[in-house]
Amino acid sequence: MDKAETALLALRMRDWVSQAGAHIRHHIHDPLHVQTKSSRKDLVTNLDKQTERDLIAAIRTEYPQAQIMGEEGSGDHVTDLKGLVFFVDPIDGTMNFVKQKYNFAIMIGAYIDGAPHVGVILNVMRQELYWGGPQLGVFKNETPIKAVSPLSLADGLFGINSGMLAYDRYHSHQLFKTSAGMRILGSAGIEYIQLLEGRQVAYLSHLAPWDVAAGRVMAETLGMSVSRLDGHPLDMLSSGDVLIATAPTVADIRAIALDQPR
Amino acid sequence: MDKAETALLALRMRDWVSQAGAHIRHHIHDPLHVQTKSSRKDLVTNLDKQTERDLIAAIRTEYPQAQIMGEEGSGDHVTDLKGLVFFVDPIDGTMNFVKQKYNFAIMIGAYIDGAPHVGVILNVMRQELYWGGPQLGVFKNETPIKAVSPLSLADGLFGINSGMLAYDRYHSHQLFKTSAGMRILGSAGIEYIQLLEGRQVAYLSHLAPWDVAAGRVMAETLGMSVSRLDGHPLDMLSSGDVLIATAPTVADIRAIALDQPR
Repeated sequence: MDKAETALLALRMRDWVSQAGAHIRHHIHDPLHVQTKSSRKDLVTNLDKQTERDLIAAIRTEYPQAQIMGEEGSGDHVTDLKGLVFFVDPIDGTMNFVKQKYNFAIMIGAYIDGAPHVGVILNVMRQELYWGGPQLGVFKNETPIKAVSPLSLADGLFGINSGMLAYDRYHSHQLFKTSAGMRILGSAGIEYIQLLEGRQVAYLSHLAPWDVAAGRVMAETLGMSVSRLDGHPLDMLSSGDVLIATAPTVADIRAIALDQPR
Repeated sequence: MDKAETALLALRMRDWVSQAGAHIRHHIHDPLHVQTKSSRKDLVTNLDKQTERDLIAAIRTEYPQAQIMGEEGSGDHVTDLKGLVFFVDPIDGTMNFVKQKYNFAIMIGAYIDGAPHVGVILNVMRQELYWGGPQLGVFKNETPIKAVSPLSLADGLFGINSGMLAYDRYHSHQLFKTSAGMRILGSAGIEYIQLLEGRQVAYLSHLAPWDVAAGRVMAETLGMSVSRLDGHPLDMLSSGDVLIATAPTVADIRAIALDQPR
């Protein structure tokens, strides 16, 4: 895809999530139909499903050949990363959406033959749109975002999954002591925004491909690392424990989390 | 203090924190002089100290008889709560201020003979000002905030101090399982805002009087409870483990945290 086609793709993706965000804000006080998925804390609402259907319909109209993986299952059953693949998270941070009406995101990542191409994350209630990719750079609304400073773990705040912190997974208590502090925000999209803005140096959680995809495009463009914590290759077709961090922080975290020599 | 005098006090408090917030935003990218206090993670900067001096000077001009307790020590050595007492937190969430330039607050609480009178919390970077008291109601900027729904722990998100979650203090792992989820934001002021907005049902942390004071005025006005977790009377002259929550959530949390019968 050449630069003009990529710019057009990014423009379309921004339009789709902006329209979906406006729709959610318009219906934010409507009664919700909330269902649980894998557990009491894994929620989906009618608005998650509706938003995913709307986004997928928009993608199909413009890119009928593309494969689409959606969190709520209305996309394709994607088993390879050939060609143009979209990863759609219609509402990331559904618990925040349901309980807070705040701090949730819409995310779309576009990949070509497995390579990150364009990512878009909308902080829905704040109407702050982060978008970009390796050919475009990264922007907040219309303002370019600069490369993130390569801070180490001791210099920065660390976003983590609450269960990992509570139960000392990956020696998280030692990570807590070594870092400047831990933060728990409840949405991968909102955590990615903290990283893109340079407000945190790392985020560690169990993430699905639609949680990882959009932010990965932008985080890597700004010089951060996105990887499986255990060092295995990042697999965009399955879930795993994913670390997003500045390069010095990755080394600091792996040394503690995996008892690895530096 | 009659209602007109209270309204004037609230207006002045809003002006003071708004001006202090504008000053901090203007200098947000200046080099900071950062010092540690009780530990590596307990920070103070030149801007905390300057802001406290400015706020205290403004208070002294209008209310020369008042006692003032300030986080950074430039106020009075307050040993009783007689008359008008101001509690000043010039930058609440100094770690966030230093590392994120985001998610920190300026807070002033005014008490008369120990009773909550007016509270003001400014989310500095968002320019969102929460203010009010029992005679005035509670407002976000110029918009009234309604009483918070009396949700229980299972229905809501729980803000907690990271150490308490990591080390299972007060059976926090059971609190985590029972609640809809834990959040860690790194600033008592920002946590109070989450509670005032109905986005979280509880916040538990080790707090000093200047952390508690402003938010307590507003939280109690909206029907929430502010207390020592162990049930001892809230003491506005010393630090302790403080729980702010809706009434049903207080009972849920005490039952678990203190092994108390319901």
